[in-house]
Amino acid sequence: MADGGAGIQESKGDGREENMAAWLVGIENLKIQPYHLPPLGPHDVKVRIKALGICGSDIHHFKHMRCANFIVKKPMVIGHECAGIIEEVGSEVEYLAVGDRVALEPGISCTQCDLCKDGRYNLCRQMKFFGSPPTNGSLANKVVHPASLCYKLPDNVSLEEGAMCEPLSVGVHACRRANIGPETSVLIMGAGTIGLVTLLAAHAFGAPRIVIVDVEARRLSMAKDLGADETIQVSTDIQDISEEVRKIQSAVPSSIDVTFDCVGVNKTMSTALSATRSGGKVCLIGLAQTEMTVPLTPAAAREIDVIGIFRYRNTWPLCIEFLRTGKIDVKPLITNRFGFSQEEIEEAFKTSAGGGSAIKVMFNL
Amino acid sequence: MADGGAGIQESKGDGREENMAAWLVGIENLKIQPYHLPPLGPHDVKVRIKALGICGSDIHHFKHMRCANFIVKKPMVIGHECAGIIEEVGSEVEYLAVGDRVALEPGISCTQCDLCKDGRYNLCRQMKFFGSPPTNGSLANKVVHPASLCYKLPDNVSLEEGAMCEPLSVGVHACRRANIGPETSVLIMGAGTIGLVTLLAAHAFGAPRIVIVDVEARRLSMAKDLGADETIQVSTDIQDISEEVRKIQSAVPSSIDVTFDCVGVNKTMSTALSATRSGGKVCLIGLAQTEMTVPLTPAAAREIDVIGIFRYRNTWPLCIEFLRTGKIDVKPLITNRFGFSQEEIEEAFKTSAGGGSAIKVMFNL
Amino acid sequence: MADGGAGIQESKGDGREENMAAWLVGIENLKIQPYHLPPLGPHDVKVRIKALGICGSDIHHFKHMRCANFIVKKPMVIGHECAGIIEEVGSEVEYLAVGDRVALEPGISCTQCDLCKDGRYNLCRQMKFFGSPPTNGSLANKVVHPASLCYKLPDNVSLEEGAMCEPLSVGVHACRRANIGPETSVLIMGAGTIGLVTLLAAHAFGAPRIVIVDVEARRLSMAKDLGADETIQVSTDIQDISEEVRKIQSAVPSSIDVTFDCVGVNKTMSTALSATRSGGKVCLIGLAQTEMTVPLTPAAAREIDVIGIFRYRNTWPLCIEFLRTGKIDVKPLITNRFGFSQEEIEEAFKTSAGGGSAIKVMFNL
Amino acid sequence: MADGGAGIQESKGDGREENMAAWLVGIENLKIQPYHLPPLGPHDVKVRIKALGICGSDIHHFKHMRCANFIVKKPMVIGHECAGIIEEVGSEVEYLAVGDRVALEPGISCTQCDLCKDGRYNLCRQMKFFGSPPTNGSLANKVVHPASLCYKLPDNVSLEEGAMCEPLSVGVHACRRANIGPETSVLIMGAGTIGLVTLLAAHAFGAPRIVIVDVEARRLSMAKDLGADETIQVSTDIQDISEEVRKIQSAVPSSIDVTFDCVGVNKTMSTALSATRSGGKVCLIGLAQTEMTVPLTPAAAREIDVIGIFRYRNTWPLCIEFLRTGKIDVKPLITNRFGFSQEEIEEAFKTSAGGGSAIKVMFNL
Repeated sequence: MADGGAGIQESKGDGREENMAAWLVGIENLKIQPYHLPPLGPHDVKVRIKALGICGSDIHHFKHMRCANFIVKKPMVIGHECAGIIEEVGSEVEYLAVGDRVALEPGISCTQCDLCKDGRYNLCRQMKFFGSPPTNGSLANKVVHPASLCYKLPDNVSLEEGAMCEPLSVGVHACRRANIGPETSVLIMGAGTIGLVTLLAAHAFGAPRIVIVDVEARRLSMAKDLGADETIQVSTDIQDISEEVRKIQSAVPSSIDVTFDCVGVNKTMSTALSATRSGGKVCLIGLAQTEMTVPLTPAAAREIDVIGIFRYRNTWPLCIEFLRTGKIDVKPLITNRFGFSQEEIEEAFKTSAGGGSAIKVMFNL
Repeated sequence: MADGGAGIQESKGDGREENMAAWLVGIENLKIQPYHLPPLGPHDVKVRIKALGICGSDIHHFKHMRCANFIVKKPMVIGHECAGIIEEVGSEVEYLAVGDRVALEPGISCTQCDLCKDGRYNLCRQMKFFGSPPTNGSLANKVVHPASLCYKLPDNVSLEEGAMCEPLSVGVHACRRANIGPETSVLIMGAGTIGLVTLLAAHAFGAPRIVIVDVEARRLSMAKDLGADETIQVSTDIQDISEEVRKIQSAVPSSIDVTFDCVGVNKTMSTALSATRSGGKVCLIGLAQTEMTVPLTPAAAREIDVIGIFRYRNTWPLCIEFLRTGKIDVKPLITNRFGFSQEEIEEAFKTSAGGGSAIKVMFNL
Repeated sequence: MADGGAGIQESKGDGREENMAAWLVGIENLKIQPYHLPPLGPHDVKVRIKALGICGSDIHHFKHMRCANFIVKKPMVIGHECAGIIEEVGSEVEYLAVGDRVALEPGISCTQCDLCKDGRYNLCRQMKFFGSPPTNGSLANKVVHPASLCYKLPDNVSLEEGAMCEPLSVGVHACRRANIGPETSVLIMGAGTIGLVTLLAAHAFGAPRIVIVDVEARRLSMAKDLGADETIQVSTDIQDISEEVRKIQSAVPSSIDVTFDCVGVNKTMSTALSATRSGGKVCLIGLAQTEMTVPLTPAAAREIDVIGIFRYRNTWPLCIEFLRTGKIDVKPLITNRFGFSQEEIEEAFKTSAGGGSAIKVMFNL
Repeated sequence: MADGGAGIQESKGDGREENMAAWLVGIENLKIQPYHLPPLGPHDVKVRIKALGICGSDIHHFKHMRCANFIVKKPMVIGHECAGIIEEVGSEVEYLAVGDRVALEPGISCTQCDLCKDGRYNLCRQMKFFGSPPTNGSLANKVVHPASLCYKLPDNVSLEEGAMCEPLSVGVHACRRANIGPETSVLIMGAGTIGLVTLLAAHAFGAPRIVIVDVEARRLSMAKDLGADETIQVSTDIQDISEEVRKIQSAVPSSIDVTFDCVGVNKTMSTALSATRSGGKVCLIGLAQTEMTVPLTPAAAREIDVIGIFRYRNTWPLCIEFLRTGKIDVKPLITNRFGFSQEEIEEAFKTSAGGGSAIKVMFNL
């Protein structure tokens, strides 16, 4: 655990701040401002951040000063998909050295509660997670972080790819929970970033057939390039579900064993519940809507299980291995790059929030 | 498999019918009429039905000529919770003899499809199930049934208790799928028949704490007598959910690991999803509503899995063992008894459909 | 089930036999002799056998008139790895037609016992299995078999490959039970047929690293060609275990998660138990030795589970899919081919039993 | 984690030691000598030990200066089954207070390695465990221990019962890994302490039938009193296995689903492997023998899995709940009690090692 405190501390205004971070100071209002680094604990490392991607939850905070139940109550550094270079190691750190290139897992769990002891640390109620209020994020020059959450990158994996381990982890965790393998035909609802990383992960887990569905042809085209076997463009009209289910099912020779809903609205979830075979699973990853109106009982009566997904656990080593061996290539997802200046930050967030052709917007710091 | 055909065949009107069954000939219109028994195949037995309980699905057929996707298109014998005495055995039947008292598992699966071979025969698409259109039921003097689906009753288990194996199986199957044990605190939504058999099953599986919720005090009183640790009376008002969740959670020292929704409406499912702990499970058994409006995403984001339940598989031997050893006593659930005459049948169905104090209405044939 | 009886019946000597089969009439004594086909039941098909591979258990029967607890007490047709062309279909067969090319799953389970109902039909105590005494095998012109155990081959999968589904199924079943996936580093003890099909299966299940061990360089060379990441030649000397374990472990960057012992003698199993990581699994597939002297307790104290494997279940569709898509290529395993004459049969069994360079010996009938 | 070091530090001989502990200074040579307590870290508590039981591994250390791979290289405090009263709490301890009665879980895992993160912390390679060399044990006046490993005892659970949570945890962990429930008929090989706590745990997990086997009638009598359904006295002669297996199997109406071998010698394990049903499990808990000669392949060919057990994880809360509710009563296992003086310590270890009628020897400090 980060003995000295989680990551980043507010500036004391004593003129001795040496680092700069992107502070969210109000709705759509980001300021690059100085801050203090916490002291380096014996099990911590200090990392010079070099690459950081913008996530949908960052956009939520940016636009609404909140995301789900997490509310921004005072200025906060945002960002959590990151990688960098180690500048200093704590006295008891054994497996990392200054100069190592590392990807950072952003959440610090308590290690002591029932859920942590049971191996489900992603559900820890005391989790301190980069950029989830009230914990500061990592869109900053430097952070202090527990060494055990910093994973060394092989030479052939770039820092940008290292930062991509975070979104990729969501897909990997979902594939693990759904037990994807060479016998699992997969349907993915939504070809946004999460849909695409789930596609990449499902492919790496051996899914023999992957169908992906979206409303936008451009995203489906990207999905096709990334390895989807079939892409199906759908409408936003709830009336079209049964016809679209027919189309989806006819695109799979056998039947759909697992569906990932990477959107999380009535229509995507209704389609998921209807298209999946009896005894299959629907993984709900996207959380766009809170209350959902869906045909849950007919699905339950076919013993379809709805599997909930929250972030990830123990995923970095596997993600890095997928990147190292080339089983997964995340580079095509990085569509836009920005530097770390006041101007570029604003531009980057606008690009990411704009809903255009951008998939992953990445900072090079 | 029932080599000679499933159970009961329509009368040919040739004056040679010797048996009588309760035919559903129209909405709320039951007639005791003769029928032909199919020939006895080598692996079949002929059973003289002695006890049969009325199920909610029978009531659905009775009132609406349909239940879920099953539609009654022509006169059909109803009923499927039954036990009786063997009158004749097929040439290759080894383990049963004339005079044996048996409980009948009502569904004949194909044994050859993927789901059957995988041990999930309850999901078999070719299932022939007593009283599910177009298969005739077993509210009749006699039925022909596969010997492998007739389970011998020990001396200390009555034929009425044998018939109760069917509803009890639903609770047993749900407890198996939810992996109930001495570490699982349980919440049950609804204290109707299915809620009560789930309570009995959860108790037998060792659940250390069971809270049950209903809108009717009378049902909760029955649940208390059957072993519920806490009973909580709730409203039907959706506005009360958060307060009721607080009440429920405060009734459990630790946290609710598994919730069984034995009703299946917006309010019960919303309560279930909110009251269950992160990483827990919600089993959806009751199917009162098709489309459901529930907070599914916040539950998914706490990795609560929604487990679907359809009937049961491989449950009779365990149910009979629970009854034999007294771990479960189903007798208190049998609240009303009727004989097998035109008049009594009508009365029995009215009683069962009436929604009064009746829990299980049983025929003694 | 094969309504008319399992496969092949002894000749009645009435001069009306039209088919010929390879009867094992004594130790190393095979005779091509006529036989009667049983009548075709409504759910059966009649198959003209076209390809049949010789298995290690056939060799056991050939040499010792027994294999494990199965003892040949009277002349018996042997063989069970087969594929052929349908010549006739029973009255109720829906999904197969005359002329279809099919691979045959050789075991007929009862479908009614606890284990069958639970989806573990390979453990059925009433299994009738081609060439396991007292059931006749399929090294014959024609067999009658349940349609549900005959799997149609796609155009790009040959009959020989169809016959290979049987040994491949052993590897597939083992990989399923061991839950092989992209996170499982695998060690395989033994590069004989079973070792090699396990290698192919583990590869298809996504194992990122597979080390295979044998005493013969020639077999290891074949394994290398088939996709092994590392091959290690070992001795038969039990003293060498700890050094060999070091070699094996240093060939894997992380640790060995699952070991398949495809031999089943003291040395292979001792190596397996020592080389596997804490919390990993050892699958015992090879059964060369009955009593085993192995360090079982130190492995148990590292919570290594020893998983038993018996044949397979529900594997044909997946094997055929692997062959169809090219994920697995079994053709290199077929090293020797023979026709179906008295002379060639004798030659074929000598070749297979000889322990030379032959891997799979195949008949073309 | 114990920030200030694990438990107990060697005396510096500076005359300022205030506490006394039982140091193992040579074979069968225990001395009560002073020691230093390490400083209290912010997450630690200081506990006044009040009850401590002697374990078989303590006896091993006592007699041989080693146990399995753990070797005593310099004087070491032994003991690890303990409970006591909190005397001081670290600055960040929230849930415990001075005066609380607590049971201590003896192992401190690293919380950071793969196995810890995966919830299998009992397999952590960096585990510091009371009385496992080189970590000192807890047969001492006072210890410093992480608060998260000290579990508060309810009023109706005594400190002696608290100390019994440690051996009971072994049985609980085994029952969890073997998935014991109301459908699992159980065989237990050996009615020593571990056999008896496994019996108690299996009972609490709902096992409907438990058969226990031992060579001594006196132990079986104790087992009978503790709830075994059947007890069978066996010989130590390996020739008797098949007859004894017949006796065991005839004592169970259905079949043995899970066997716990709480001894771990050729004969017990051979019996276990033969007596368990196809598809069942054998849990190897006892570790009396390292190399084992057992019929492993016939068991593997019936898909019996051999499950390894090492200590326990996450068991204290459940054990305490079992004791609080009376589902388990461990008091009858405590057969001998001693005080904490040089003389009594020697006597206690002789009693425990003597193999007489003593089950659990307990110190009251």
